[in-house]
Amino acid sequence: MADEEKSRVGLVGLAVMGQNLALNVAEKGFKISVFNRSGDKTDNAVARAQKEGLGDKLVGYKDMKEFVNSLQKPRSVIILVKAGAPVDATIKGLSEHMEPGDIIIDGGNEWYENTERRIEEAHAKNLLYMGMGVSGGEEGARNGPSMMPGGDVEAYEAVKEVLTASTAQTDSGACVTFVGKGGAGNFVKMVHNGIEYGDMQLISEAYDVLKTVGGLTNAELATAFNEWNAAELDSFLIEISALILAKEDDQVADGGPLVDKILDKTGMKGTGKWTVQQAAELSVAIPTIASSLDARFISGVKDERVAAEACYKTAGLAAADAATPKLSAEEKKQLVDDVRAALYASKICSYAQGMNLIRAKSTEQEWGLDLGEMARIWKGGCIIRARFLDRIKKAYDKDANLPSLLVDGEFAAELVERNESWRRVVTAAINAGVATPSMSGSLAYFDSYRRGRLPANLVQAQRDFFGSHTYERTDMEGWHHTVWSDMNSADSITTDGYNA
Amino acid sequence: MADEEKSRVGLVGLAVMGQNLALNVAEKGFKISVFNRSGDKTDNAVARAQKEGLGDKLVGYKDMKEFVNSLQKPRSVIILVKAGAPVDATIKGLSEHMEPGDIIIDGGNEWYENTERRIEEAHAKNLLYMGMGVSGGEEGARNGPSMMPGGDVEAYEAVKEVLTASTAQTDSGACVTFVGKGGAGNFVKMVHNGIEYGDMQLISEAYDVLKTVGGLTNAELATAFNEWNAAELDSFLIEISALILAKEDDQVADGGPLVDKILDKTGMKGTGKWTVQQAAELSVAIPTIASSLDARFISGVKDERVAAEACYKTAGLAAADAATPKLSAEEKKQLVDDVRAALYASKICSYAQGMNLIRAKSTEQEWGLDLGEMARIWKGGCIIRARFLDRIKKAYDKDANLPSLLVDGEFAAELVERNESWRRVVTAAINAGVATPSMSGSLAYFDSYRRGRLPANLVQAQRDFFGSHTYERTDMEGWHHTVWSDMNSADSITTDGYNA
Repeated sequence: MADEEKSRVGLVGLAVMGQNLALNVAEKGFKISVFNRSGDKTDNAVARAQKEGLGDKLVGYKDMKEFVNSLQKPRSVIILVKAGAPVDATIKGLSEHMEPGDIIIDGGNEWYENTERRIEEAHAKNLLYMGMGVSGGEEGARNGPSMMPGGDVEAYEAVKEVLTASTAQTDSGACVTFVGKGGAGNFVKMVHNGIEYGDMQLISEAYDVLKTVGGLTNAELATAFNEWNAAELDSFLIEISALILAKEDDQVADGGPLVDKILDKTGMKGTGKWTVQQAAELSVAIPTIASSLDARFISGVKDERVAAEACYKTAGLAAADAATPKLSAEEKKQLVDDVRAALYASKICSYAQGMNLIRAKSTEQEWGLDLGEMARIWKGGCIIRARFLDRIKKAYDKDANLPSLLVDGEFAAELVERNESWRRVVTAAINAGVATPSMSGSLAYFDSYRRGRLPANLVQAQRDFFGSHTYERTDMEGWHHTVWSDMNSADSITTDGYNA
Repeated sequence: MADEEKSRVGLVGLAVMGQNLALNVAEKGFKISVFNRSGDKTDNAVARAQKEGLGDKLVGYKDMKEFVNSLQKPRSVIILVKAGAPVDATIKGLSEHMEPGDIIIDGGNEWYENTERRIEEAHAKNLLYMGMGVSGGEEGARNGPSMMPGGDVEAYEAVKEVLTASTAQTDSGACVTFVGKGGAGNFVKMVHNGIEYGDMQLISEAYDVLKTVGGLTNAELATAFNEWNAAELDSFLIEISALILAKEDDQVADGGPLVDKILDKTGMKGTGKWTVQQAAELSVAIPTIASSLDARFISGVKDERVAAEACYKTAGLAAADAATPKLSAEEKKQLVDDVRAALYASKICSYAQGMNLIRAKSTEQEWGLDLGEMARIWKGGCIIRARFLDRIKKAYDKDANLPSLLVDGEFAAELVERNESWRRVVTAAINAGVATPSMSGSLAYFDSYRRGRLPANLVQAQRDFFGSHTYERTDMEGWHHTVWSDMNSADSITTDGYNA
């Protein structure tokens, strides 16, 4: 095969995401070779390409060697298979046929340390490697996702034109940038997903408050969400929520809103869990994201919840759903506006947490990540895409060292403007017995962070009392220890060694 | 040395905890050999023993071989050194002089998997090994701690009489039991510490609400805490909080309450972090404990908080502390009663979370842990000791398979009785701008768990929309997928493979 006939890039793993991304790349004018462990998916991808008039740009292979040899040098292959062992198996297969300088790009939701290990292994074979977060779901993969590549910058340079053309385009450019070295791309994608968990939970709480406390019908809910989507809350997740709320059930005769028939159990993958674990590791508080993960866990024990509801009904406390809200049109309008404010304020807190987590990791790993640039590449393509991200980008453009989005002047003004509505929503929910863990967790985060003096002095005094952990004072330097009572002994003064 | 002159047990690591535990064991009539890497602490321990009339029962050694040879066979040595590498170094030193059947017991806050590795390593040398959580701080170590030994049951049998005599004694027996195999003892101690974090944070929130919302003086606070300590909240941490609140500052001329001078920054060790990470790993929601860890993180960024307070003052939102509450005596009394109820209700939620985490791990590891027995050995000696633990023990005695403490009949009745007070406290705090992350997190947990239908249906619909993750229905079997709008393509139907 003459070099000009060879493909610009290759792709392994033809589940829907892989197929869609391959068609996307082909559509942008880059010839792409595709391969899948089971050949039927390769056939399927080729058939789809032909159907979409991209038959000359997408070539299927069923032999790994032929696949690799069909690529222009340096050969660049994007892998979209399940994270973990399948990635290692694919790398092994590819590297048997690759040459020094060739490039492997894992597009999966991989644990960042696995990418760092694979970078080392690739270098031992003189290959280049990237771990690249890809967000946007199936639709994003087909029409332009957000991509978060990290690892070898030379690899990025080699495929930059392909990635730039294939990602979503915004008024701030293509939704891709070289994130940083090592596992930085995977880490940023992990936090993106944690933020996505937070957004989804916050939206579900907004829905719950409006429905259960406000008594809004699904049609009224869809209308509210559509209105919200025209202004500061404009985002993919609000947009699809409006579509979901308006969708009629066509699976049964009597129809009605489909969302009401969906079981309230949510699945999850590893990224939300990792985000929470990394935050604990790095001493970063991310209560909005953590409570959204907890909400998925609690949703999972449906049988226990149904039993608990019955237990509490017997004990004299009915579930929130038992009440029939009777709000006037005016009260409904006020509640919709309040919930909109609460949702937006909570969202600012959630993104502040996520950004701080990225920065903490970047500092630890010396990745040198640019937070404003992360917000920029999330503006389009990905699941959390939103008008709001432009504001975050601008906050970091103004001050790259901003300690928190909460102290950006514009966000602070917005939070102050909304804080009464926010408090009204959370207290109304509490009084109705409706849990809003992520909204109330966000509010507690806000009220903690903006307070110079917290009651942690008592906690530290307790630690000194029972463990001689010592304390600092507000009025003098140094570490101090007090014999608080006869329960302490004077022998106990220590600041080192073992304390339980 | 004749065998009857030899020591019943040995102890390595003579920081305050180690010294105190050695004196405790000696006082119970067991001859104990002690060793420390630096000899001055050995001298100190011996001097303290002589001063306390225990000189014939506590013998100091400065040579590891002599130390080991001074012990009755099977030789049993408790290690109380810093977790991690120092433990490995101590094990190495000991095992050079030990014989098959001898026993090493690590009493530190060790990560449970390190204990499991060391058990394997000990077995390779025909030694027995235990990882034993010890709680009670310095005072507990001296007068009777709670001990959570896990690992080799034969090792437990060999030292049972020493541990049983040295731990705290309650009306339900000594505060020790064989927890389970492997790292079970360390894991249970880790969760104990997580619960301890939760208790400390909840108490600090109670203090904050009473002080900041209620305007109580420190003297009034101490009185309230002392009253609480006489009934359902009776516990070590409430007791010492009352003592702390009443303590005058003797380090400066003008005196005043010492707690007011303590800097509001709290330190931490690894166990709280591990608890949160393990909960995420095991899909168990522990929001009360997680928010208490977050509160420590936020306390740590004192400078940022001071700057944020100034930023928000400028933006038009004063800190909660700026207000001067003017409550009548009657209103104060009501608030004290409400906060007491909120604290107790939140505490039930926190322990329910901790117990569920222990059970999830026990199931995963097949440890067969007895939750009622865990509550029993925490009744005395440890930092979380409380009258309340007897109630937990009884709940599990009644039903070992209780899915949650929240559905125990007695706890459910107590929660229903308190739920209005609880809501009043959290909403009053929210309206005053005072964060109560652990109390509000507990309440959200309660309201989520007791609700048969949560808004997770919308989250699952979103997941199906953008990732074809499918959903279950309330009215029919199986997994379903919907093409929600033109934004989905019919080609996207999939339930396996790669989804981002």
